[in-house]
Amino acid sequence: MQALDRTESALARALDLADRAGRAPPRLAAAMRQAVFPGGARVRPRLCLAVAGACGDDAPALSAAMGAAVELLHCASLVHDDLPCFDNAATRRGLPTTHRAHGERLAVLAGDALIVLAYQQLAAACTAETVARLPELLRCLSEGVGMPLGIVAGQAWESEPAPDLSEYQRAKTGALFAAAAAGGALAAGRDEAGWREFGDALGSAYQIADDVRDVLLDEATLGKPSGQDEALDRPSVVRSLGHRGALRVFDQAIHQALDTLPDCPGAEALRGLVHAEAARLVPRALHARLAAA
Amino acid sequence: MQALDRTESALARALDLADRAGRAPPRLAAAMRQAVFPGGARVRPRLCLAVAGACGDDAPALSAAMGAAVELLHCASLVHDDLPCFDNAATRRGLPTTHRAHGERLAVLAGDALIVLAYQQLAAACTAETVARLPELLRCLSEGVGMPLGIVAGQAWESEPAPDLSEYQRAKTGALFAAAAAGGALAAGRDEAGWREFGDALGSAYQIADDVRDVLLDEATLGKPSGQDEALDRPSVVRSLGHRGALRVFDQAIHQALDTLPDCPGAEALRGLVHAEAARLVPRALHARLAAA
Repeated sequence: MQALDRTESALARALDLADRAGRAPPRLAAAMRQAVFPGGARVRPRLCLAVAGACGDDAPALSAAMGAAVELLHCASLVHDDLPCFDNAATRRGLPTTHRAHGERLAVLAGDALIVLAYQQLAAACTAETVARLPELLRCLSEGVGMPLGIVAGQAWESEPAPDLSEYQRAKTGALFAAAAAGGALAAGRDEAGWREFGDALGSAYQIADDVRDVLLDEATLGKPSGQDEALDRPSVVRSLGHRGALRVFDQAIHQALDTLPDCPGAEALRGLVHAEAARLVPRALHARLAAA
Repeated sequence: MQALDRTESALARALDLADRAGRAPPRLAAAMRQAVFPGGARVRPRLCLAVAGACGDDAPALSAAMGAAVELLHCASLVHDDLPCFDNAATRRGLPTTHRAHGERLAVLAGDALIVLAYQQLAAACTAETVARLPELLRCLSEGVGMPLGIVAGQAWESEPAPDLSEYQRAKTGALFAAAAAGGALAAGRDEAGWREFGDALGSAYQIADDVRDVLLDEATLGKPSGQDEALDRPSVVRSLGHRGALRVFDQAIHQALDTLPDCPGAEALRGLVHAEAARLVPRALHARLAAA
């Protein structure tokens, strides 16, 4: 089964845990599903599974659950980031945001419940053979999302008077990419050494591409409002370095990912995936437009 | 070391994980600490440790971490419950609520970060000898807080048009008490059978006492606004059954806890603790006042 199918199946199993036996409050159950389906590119779980595959993937239920955990935490952070007290976003992936569709209360609770579910379904995927890997997987996941260096910390830097841009970007995006990559290796019983750096570099590329797309693409293409970094006075690599500067650091980040990719049986396939992802993030036409800007 | 000291130490260790190395965004780190210290009665972790003790407590670092996990999740739920979109509470334990002290954004993030930290510090407390207990502890914890039957579900029933009162109370309070009791047994390597019912009964008693105190005590004694169930049109056992009816079901819940207490070496000491807790929740004078109402 392909990475995307494995991810969707793992997410569907996870959401079934949350509203099993028909005893869940139905509105919260609906808000949780709406926050997870239909998904975006599922880039983090695909990264997790790609790394697991490159490392042998001897426990595929565990790697799929680790990928799903990362994605559930990502979805939770989007639901909370969209709240009125943060971005007050009306749309996400072309649909109403969770608080617009279900109200602010259920959006807060849906985010909370998705964080819990991320851990719960990971624990449920463990067997007696793989349980020894669980503490490291939980540490890895928590470092990607929690304090002091995860995505929650990244969001919190927006409330500080003088955030450091690279610390902010690394926490807000890089940390969960690093956790996805390291988690893929850990789920396959390997050491995480080198994989955090690989994931972190991909996370940087992704964040830069997001900043670029926020400036250059329109709302219909993005599925969410464009120009939000400027409107909300958020730090952005395009605002700091301009279009060409942003393109330069994007290319650097992709090269760094390729350079840091640890030695493993599936390294060649993984390099191909990085190239394909780079082309997806900044399509050739956009690349040319930025280079000429 | 006494249960309360063990709990405070475990919580302090957990919060140190969250802002180690001085790299955490300082305002979020402060908001998290303010949400956890100074604490209330720490009734849930004390219950967890009391049950662990009654079951032999052969892994005291693990039982303390399980108690801390339950308390961190409880603190997270209070921070989110106090938000403007829910209770919009100004004070908690006699001090400003997290969003009043630190702003709404950091209150949302502090709750999220505390949920993550609950799992993270539990995983960190495992050793090679105790790791086989971890999946069940995580399941137990998640069922207490998440969907479909945990405290998040309980809060969500407030957004449903016709919530069932007993389902609502059990999810909003009983579920985390059940997790605390069952978690104490699991941390000590025992089966959870019977302990959920014991914790659930104590949780009912606690919720009823909370409803009673909300009606009968003033803000200075409560450390938070009184009369909130009526003001916010929340289900309450006092509103349904009156003062004497509430007292009757409180006494029933305490008896149920005593009746369901599983056989174990420390059963007698635990019975004494239940009696002491009942007297703390509804002091003799208040009991007499209710009986005469």
